[in-house]
Amino acid sequence: MYALLNDLRIVEGASFIAAPSCALHLLQLGAEVIRFDQVGGGPDFRRWPLAADGQSLYWQGLNKGKKSVALDLRQSEGRELAVRLATAPGPGRGLFVTNYPVRGFLSHDNLATHRADMISVRVMGWEDGSTALDYTVNAGVGYPLVTGPESMGGEPVNHVLPAWDLLAGTHAAIALLAAERHRQVSGEGQEIRVPLGDVGLATLGHLGQVAEAVVLGTQRPRVGNDLYGAFGRDFLTADGVRLMIVAITARQWTGLVGALGLDAAMARLEQELGVALAPDEGVRYLHRDRLNPLVAEAVAARSVAQLEPVFAANGVCWEPYRTPLEAAAQRCTPQASALYRDVEHPGGLRYPTPGATATLAGRPRETPGRAPRLGEHTDEVLAQVLGLADHEIGRLHDRGLVAGPAQDA
Amino acid sequence: MYALLNDLRIVEGASFIAAPSCALHLLQLGAEVIRFDQVGGGPDFRRWPLAADGQSLYWQGLNKGKKSVALDLRQSEGRELAVRLATAPGPGRGLFVTNYPVRGFLSHDNLATHRADMISVRVMGWEDGSTALDYTVNAGVGYPLVTGPESMGGEPVNHVLPAWDLLAGTHAAIALLAAERHRQVSGEGQEIRVPLGDVGLATLGHLGQVAEAVVLGTQRPRVGNDLYGAFGRDFLTADGVRLMIVAITARQWTGLVGALGLDAAMARLEQELGVALAPDEGVRYLHRDRLNPLVAEAVAARSVAQLEPVFAANGVCWEPYRTPLEAAAQRCTPQASALYRDVEHPGGLRYPTPGATATLAGRPRETPGRAPRLGEHTDEVLAQVLGLADHEIGRLHDRGLVAGPAQDA
Repeated sequence: MYALLNDLRIVEGASFIAAPSCALHLLQLGAEVIRFDQVGGGPDFRRWPLAADGQSLYWQGLNKGKKSVALDLRQSEGRELAVRLATAPGPGRGLFVTNYPVRGFLSHDNLATHRADMISVRVMGWEDGSTALDYTVNAGVGYPLVTGPESMGGEPVNHVLPAWDLLAGTHAAIALLAAERHRQVSGEGQEIRVPLGDVGLATLGHLGQVAEAVVLGTQRPRVGNDLYGAFGRDFLTADGVRLMIVAITARQWTGLVGALGLDAAMARLEQELGVALAPDEGVRYLHRDRLNPLVAEAVAARSVAQLEPVFAANGVCWEPYRTPLEAAAQRCTPQASALYRDVEHPGGLRYPTPGATATLAGRPRETPGRAPRLGEHTDEVLAQVLGLADHEIGRLHDRGLVAGPAQDA
Repeated sequence: MYALLNDLRIVEGASFIAAPSCALHLLQLGAEVIRFDQVGGGPDFRRWPLAADGQSLYWQGLNKGKKSVALDLRQSEGRELAVRLATAPGPGRGLFVTNYPVRGFLSHDNLATHRADMISVRVMGWEDGSTALDYTVNAGVGYPLVTGPESMGGEPVNHVLPAWDLLAGTHAAIALLAAERHRQVSGEGQEIRVPLGDVGLATLGHLGQVAEAVVLGTQRPRVGNDLYGAFGRDFLTADGVRLMIVAITARQWTGLVGALGLDAAMARLEQELGVALAPDEGVRYLHRDRLNPLVAEAVAARSVAQLEPVFAANGVCWEPYRTPLEAAAQRCTPQASALYRDVEHPGGLRYPTPGATATLAGRPRETPGRAPRLGEHTDEVLAQVLGLADHEIGRLHDRGLVAGPAQDA
């Protein structure tokens, strides 16, 4: 956590990945985040992976550091409490992140009747309001049909990284900060919608793929693990370690060729083909079927231990493939990365927990917050944010409108 | 474009996807972005896909709307011009986005000698300064070994979406806005580093995968196109259309079962297995080998035209798989999406071009900017930002320190 946004308070009524990660990123730059959930947990409270006691490690990961308030949103007074939280007065407040439907008690229009300068950020499926999730957006924008081995023919390969959810979350955070900045000057609120579908469609455009389709009538082909438009692929070492090796810039290419002792072989190939391989990455892509075997043979003749120093000396861009288990064990620890600290989470679960992705060079990293227990901060938030007295909070409990952590422990 | 950040000017000295997309997103929310490049083009100026005249559609996509200044960065006076641009005085200035090395003339320390409250945002490979690109980070954090069909065994499947580049770009934009907001209050500058590697490692943690590895000693398995932890997969219709269908929430599941007329079959299965499928998505995942064939058979018995209305009526979450060409033609047009406008780019290339991913509900969208020609704004920027007189600019041209667009047309 870095203390850049300490005067911001964001209220989150959201589930799954996109909206909760939006507020998480802002929290890790200093904002306070209050999350409300249905008593007993919302639709993401038991998402896999689950610990032995049924707690969702996924939920813990996305909600660490947040304050948790449990409300019965099925009762109108519970919904009213949610609206009052989202619209609480004060500068740096009135910031609401959600994936609730456009209409309903958490609609922007309803919130704006309580606070005219309300900023709401809504992650959605498609822009027209129809349902979509990360996997369906991915199917719709085309990546599964160009991911994976050529032998797959016309069959899709879904990638498992929820990239559209993660990107929608960060786009929502950018828009929220931009709107809040503008509100400071203008006093204006803002209704912001970030459809997963639009993130997907815009990405196709930003990367030149829409232009390619319209101007050239082509699309990037399915080329297995080869990198499109330059040199890169997986290669196997003599000791059976699989490496991803990439050479996009001229320097990366000459470094790789030098490291593998392929200067003469590549010079012969350049002469035969009448091309220069270093200055133009596209030429390397075009002739990848000639380059790949030469690199594969050279890598296959060496162990990782042999390659490592010479790759380092030559500025080669490479990485061994790791399983998620290996990545976690080798890289996601306080010893291996300044990102990670050991944190104890509810249920006595202790594991390395990441802080902000951005490193502020002059500032020490604080320890990332632990995940809350569901409803852990209900009473504290009702008192501090809504100014309710103890007996009023007690009455809300009695009527089942709110819950503390005990019910869910 | 939305006019939220109109008083911000960001200077970009950067190539590839991550850093240029950072500034692009801020531009599409109103900021001015001045990009400088080496005369003749930097390392990303000819990245594929290329138009017939050699122009990079990729470069156009990532740099649309930006002002382009061409400098000879191999000469010390050219480098000095870049530093003066990045550190130009005034509020809302002194914001620099780069992927240049930590050390060198564009180091934060050097920029800060010119402007004490400088904010620099640097996208990097790994946090320790070692080289990494999207594909090598992806190999290192584990996703290629759990993406793709189970039949791939231990072989990796690289996904082709440059998700880590795209995420690093958005994380950089979030950090930039947070730092600029903090600067308004404190007067402090900030050196921000966003390593692609840290974005990858933090994501593993945020999604609960590090906790899973440490607490449970397991990782999510490779399950082909099946969605992990809930119900979802690709299915083929009677008329040969492949659909991605997902049911994460109880409502999505009961909607799907109802739409396909599978209520009785699922009730029998629930009885046989002694489980309830609707309330617990994890149960649907555990028993996916029993559910998938039933859904597959029902989908295979119907055409898309038959499924479409009944899916819509039942709130089913689904999408047909499209190729990138189909996605571009069907979804990335001004007719299909408010995101897209037809814009004419350099070289007379006219194609649909996306604006901001966030929709501000109360504000009209402006037409997205076109890509600049390399060096198109050299003279304008030297005059307006650095206050150079015509004869001084002329001398810079004469000495080959700067270039206008003519040289590169």
